[in-house]
Amino acid sequence: MSVHEQSRGFASDNYAGAHPEVLQAIASANAGHQPAYGGDEWTARLLETMRGLLGDQVEVFPVFNGTGANVTALTSLMPRWGAVVTTSTAHINTDEGGAPERVSGLKLLTVDTPDGKLTPELVDRHAWGWGDEHRAQPLTVSITQTTELGTLYTVDEVRAIADHAHERGMAVHMDGARIANAAAALGVPLRDFTTDAGVDILSFGATKNGALYGEAVVVLDPSATEGLPYLRKLTMQLASKMRFVSAQLLALLEDDLYLRSAGHANAMAARLRSSLDDAIASGDLSGLSFSQPTQANAVFAVLDNAVADRIRERVRFYDWDRAAGEVRWMTAFDTTEADVDAFADVIREELAR
Amino acid sequence: MSVHEQSRGFASDNYAGAHPEVLQAIASANAGHQPAYGGDEWTARLLETMRGLLGDQVEVFPVFNGTGANVTALTSLMPRWGAVVTTSTAHINTDEGGAPERVSGLKLLTVDTPDGKLTPELVDRHAWGWGDEHRAQPLTVSITQTTELGTLYTVDEVRAIADHAHERGMAVHMDGARIANAAAALGVPLRDFTTDAGVDILSFGATKNGALYGEAVVVLDPSATEGLPYLRKLTMQLASKMRFVSAQLLALLEDDLYLRSAGHANAMAARLRSSLDDAIASGDLSGLSFSQPTQANAVFAVLDNAVADRIRERVRFYDWDRAAGEVRWMTAFDTTEADVDAFADVIREELAR
Amino acid sequence: MSVHEQSRGFASDNYAGAHPEVLQAIASANAGHQPAYGGDEWTARLLETMRGLLGDQVEVFPVFNGTGANVTALTSLMPRWGAVVTTSTAHINTDEGGAPERVSGLKLLTVDTPDGKLTPELVDRHAWGWGDEHRAQPLTVSITQTTELGTLYTVDEVRAIADHAHERGMAVHMDGARIANAAAALGVPLRDFTTDAGVDILSFGATKNGALYGEAVVVLDPSATEGLPYLRKLTMQLASKMRFVSAQLLALLEDDLYLRSAGHANAMAARLRSSLDDAIASGDLSGLSFSQPTQANAVFAVLDNAVADRIRERVRFYDWDRAAGEVRWMTAFDTTEADVDAFADVIREELAR
Amino acid sequence: MSVHEQSRGFASDNYAGAHPEVLQAIASANAGHQPAYGGDEWTARLLETMRGLLGDQVEVFPVFNGTGANVTALTSLMPRWGAVVTTSTAHINTDEGGAPERVSGLKLLTVDTPDGKLTPELVDRHAWGWGDEHRAQPLTVSITQTTELGTLYTVDEVRAIADHAHERGMAVHMDGARIANAAAALGVPLRDFTTDAGVDILSFGATKNGALYGEAVVVLDPSATEGLPYLRKLTMQLASKMRFVSAQLLALLEDDLYLRSAGHANAMAARLRSSLDDAIASGDLSGLSFSQPTQANAVFAVLDNAVADRIRERVRFYDWDRAAGEVRWMTAFDTTEADVDAFADVIREELAR
Repeated sequence: MSVHEQSRGFASDNYAGAHPEVLQAIASANAGHQPAYGGDEWTARLLETMRGLLGDQVEVFPVFNGTGANVTALTSLMPRWGAVVTTSTAHINTDEGGAPERVSGLKLLTVDTPDGKLTPELVDRHAWGWGDEHRAQPLTVSITQTTELGTLYTVDEVRAIADHAHERGMAVHMDGARIANAAAALGVPLRDFTTDAGVDILSFGATKNGALYGEAVVVLDPSATEGLPYLRKLTMQLASKMRFVSAQLLALLEDDLYLRSAGHANAMAARLRSSLDDAIASGDLSGLSFSQPTQANAVFAVLDNAVADRIRERVRFYDWDRAAGEVRWMTAFDTTEADVDAFADVIREELAR
Repeated sequence: MSVHEQSRGFASDNYAGAHPEVLQAIASANAGHQPAYGGDEWTARLLETMRGLLGDQVEVFPVFNGTGANVTALTSLMPRWGAVVTTSTAHINTDEGGAPERVSGLKLLTVDTPDGKLTPELVDRHAWGWGDEHRAQPLTVSITQTTELGTLYTVDEVRAIADHAHERGMAVHMDGARIANAAAALGVPLRDFTTDAGVDILSFGATKNGALYGEAVVVLDPSATEGLPYLRKLTMQLASKMRFVSAQLLALLEDDLYLRSAGHANAMAARLRSSLDDAIASGDLSGLSFSQPTQANAVFAVLDNAVADRIRERVRFYDWDRAAGEVRWMTAFDTTEADVDAFADVIREELAR
Repeated sequence: MSVHEQSRGFASDNYAGAHPEVLQAIASANAGHQPAYGGDEWTARLLETMRGLLGDQVEVFPVFNGTGANVTALTSLMPRWGAVVTTSTAHINTDEGGAPERVSGLKLLTVDTPDGKLTPELVDRHAWGWGDEHRAQPLTVSITQTTELGTLYTVDEVRAIADHAHERGMAVHMDGARIANAAAALGVPLRDFTTDAGVDILSFGATKNGALYGEAVVVLDPSATEGLPYLRKLTMQLASKMRFVSAQLLALLEDDLYLRSAGHANAMAARLRSSLDDAIASGDLSGLSFSQPTQANAVFAVLDNAVADRIRERVRFYDWDRAAGEVRWMTAFDTTEADVDAFADVIREELAR
Repeated sequence: MSVHEQSRGFASDNYAGAHPEVLQAIASANAGHQPAYGGDEWTARLLETMRGLLGDQVEVFPVFNGTGANVTALTSLMPRWGAVVTTSTAHINTDEGGAPERVSGLKLLTVDTPDGKLTPELVDRHAWGWGDEHRAQPLTVSITQTTELGTLYTVDEVRAIADHAHERGMAVHMDGARIANAAAALGVPLRDFTTDAGVDILSFGATKNGALYGEAVVVLDPSATEGLPYLRKLTMQLASKMRFVSAQLLALLEDDLYLRSAGHANAMAARLRSSLDDAIASGDLSGLSFSQPTQANAVFAVLDNAVADRIRERVRFYDWDRAAGEVRWMTAFDTTEADVDAFADVIREELAR
């Protein structure tokens, strides 16, 4: 076991384990027989809890993972000829092994962005050609909250995109793999930047927030989707012992564990960023800059590849764009202040060599 | 909560929860950060354990669920033009929402069987037409062990099918959603009826055996498959926190928990069957017969629909073929002798009314 | 060039070339520029002609070939979770290389039949389980007219299936690769056994009837389908110079060339059959029997494989089921009485050896 | 019939009909019965002819249309996890209704270009990440010759891309919907910029060159592809009466009709361009510029939308990018000098108003 194996690094929020309260919830759910495939009482309670948070009309479909949530959700919004307008950095475009195309035949219409965020103007790069049979029909807009670049849509920004999409007959999907981080960062109720901002369907993330596994497709506007029970089965995302997925989601939602955990992760990223910003401002640190604002639990930094590699020998993290010297430092629910401070020290030491 | 909710019924082995030792293993794996997507130490140990059981050449790909394991495994065996010879009662044909066809474009060539088991002769109903571009090419045989009808292939039966398939250039997949029940029933090492019998790839079941979730695609003959790492990702079966899947599988395999649990479930089905057989033989019970031998953890019985419905009001189970009055009674790792005896009493009471 | 190459055999109606009137129609359509992709005047006229034959509400989508027509038509009837109830001998099941499964993810639920014809009772083998997410949803019935076994549905038989399907919320597709042969055999207007019998969508065959290439998806009930313009494009069946497909279909429909050609082909099959029947009845011929009635342009015969092979050395045809000694003799629009009589002579000679 | 219907416009080379020699070839092929699905003598001759042109190792698979050729060709180059690096203006990306994604699950990795042409540097935007299961694997480069923007790759440019791709383990597909125009423009043998430049598979276009329908997938390096006979069937591109596709291709290739026709179309585009260039140079024409060089049979011009619309009322053509005022004027094999001169007059008149 290397030094790495025993420590918390800054590689990914899915390098973390499960939150103890989540584990406890699983143990509590492990009593007797329960109907499989969602007929259990935890799944029923999850629906009620989600309705309390997001609206009485919502429907909830627990699934296994984020890719499964995204592909199942997008598929439910569109006929076979539909296409998805999204960013070129979107997880569905870069990190899902082509699952949207291969599992559901979805065409992705991608647009480059400076910060991982779509805007109505960027949507319009692809939002045209309806009725032209030669063109995959742009019928859905997919945004990620928080984005793959650690940035955050404001409530108004989400609403502007949703209004723009709806005016053109397009539906809106939100990839909320880190929706808890967004909620914590925005400091507003979940429904403000989802249901009430016009999002039609949501991939509600739990794994990066402290679950062992499990996410949920949350239908915010049931009139926008079709066939989700069937689609979840055929995308192979229907858990037999679903109570264990639902119990985890419930544990995160009850007593706002999701907000506490995500808020802590965000604070740890902010602590890292401000520590380094301060050192730069005071002239104590050079050779380091930042390519994105730190609005949630990610710090995107630019530094020399050789220095990055030396830092990485001591603490784990990933390159983002090696050609540009860009790296990504992620915090998680279990990152400690000591972890952050030690990491900042390592960064300072290696930059100073 | 109905009476049903609080009790163990005979509906399905996935109505059961998780085995306590499995839960304990998850808790033990929940320490610190670990590389995601299989780079963790538990997944490494799982590979070593599986190699010890099934052969040094095997490769292991933990996945989320049985449908995912089956579709991913089958896809890895075949080009886009391949077809799968299987039984009409196979899970891949009847219970996966068309996922093999929809996710991977696999054509299933199905054959009716009396007992859920293929034979070389039954394979030959579809094993022809290679080289004819009009015909989906039969390139794989898929068998289920134990079968969906609770029956069991002997070692020789598996070997005969595998030899027959290989002679014709076809690969062999085993859906082992209940492979532990098969191993316990056969009383031979796992590899005797898998690797050594000529099976090329295996869906290794854990959920029905006491896991919360999780199965594994186990490649027994690496030369028969292609692209599994990519396929597992694009079929959306790649767990980020994979250590928790692997730790469960390890818990089942270490100290033979999988055999103890499955052996117990099998014994409970045998107890139910023999109790009812005895009552029939002694003339104490009428109106009940059995459509399949009880070779693992399922009892397939035939009785009047109305009687079945009265029994079901008291203890949960599923119809199998209502037109034929056929029902399925499943036992699980946590079924107790008292559960069985009480159920047998209910059956006797309702048949006597 | 072998003897075979120069002569008309009994292998398939698509071994025939194009009818001279069809070629003439193509030449006539070859004048000046015309909008591509169906914006031309011949396609507009085809729509009017089809509406005259099949109803004012119909929509027409010319395509390239029969497999394309079938898959495009079936796809337009169903969401991604739909399944098709059909016969095990259906072209979509046996001769399309798995295109329905691979291109559109369609699951086929097949049933064995004695004569290639579905009935309401046979449909019911698979017409159940709606609402069960584990089961591919049976949403369409597909019948072939005339069937792959040379048999014919009566008007009442089609209507009985369509009524049965519609009562269960299922749509009805007719594979009319040989619809002209059916119309000629039934001696009733096309719409009697299509639109008026409750068929929702039709693959209208032209190639086997004397076209070079080209068929049409004809929507009889527009409310039953969705997205056909987009689907035809994405199934790669949208012809750029569509006028040449439409002109051929028009040539067949105008002046009833389709009926004349198909009626002639049917008569040639009847001539062959009655000639052989007479010889059998009179005791002049033995070793030959028939496995299907000859209701259109196919004769299905049973004879010794060795004899069949000797006949085949002199005149081309295909085995249908070699294990059963079953062969298929097809006639085409250009089969002559002399061809038939010569072939009957060859059969008699070889059976007598 | 509008004025448009009776005249040759500049909308598309597939608005043209068929070349008379092609029609004659079809008539000549219409003699007697021939084995279907490619067993005919014309298809055999086509193979010999193509081998003479492109190399003794080539394999030829006639298909129906360009989209079918592209998707079938690309699919044969790649496993299910492969992705295609191509331009954002490629036909496969913009004009095939998402068929690559939907029929074969292909992921397209697109890059913007100034002129529709890839370069090794542009390929590298996406040519990375092999072995990373999260990333669709870039395994093929697809280029179009001539491009969708009317530009032309030189022999050296094709070779540079192919060498670059091969060094990285990627295969090379050429969309040759207008390959005849390229051959005529380059003035070198076909194989110089295909086989000998390292292209692995070719969509050989015929429709835009004067066929009624029909293209061919031409495998230049058989070791790069797999399963084409099966793939052509399952992509629904297998013609039953294939002799008529092959006869057309033969007619185009024999006596260099393809070069004569394409060379004429190119010359007509050059005539239009130089006429307008001259007028601009002499100050006789203003308000018109060109966005691309005219290297084959397309002229890409920029002018005021309102003027373009007035011109279009008199002669048909398409907008290319209305926001940029960019239009496309295409010539065909049957465009006459008088057509060009009249069109140039119309352009001048409307620009002068």
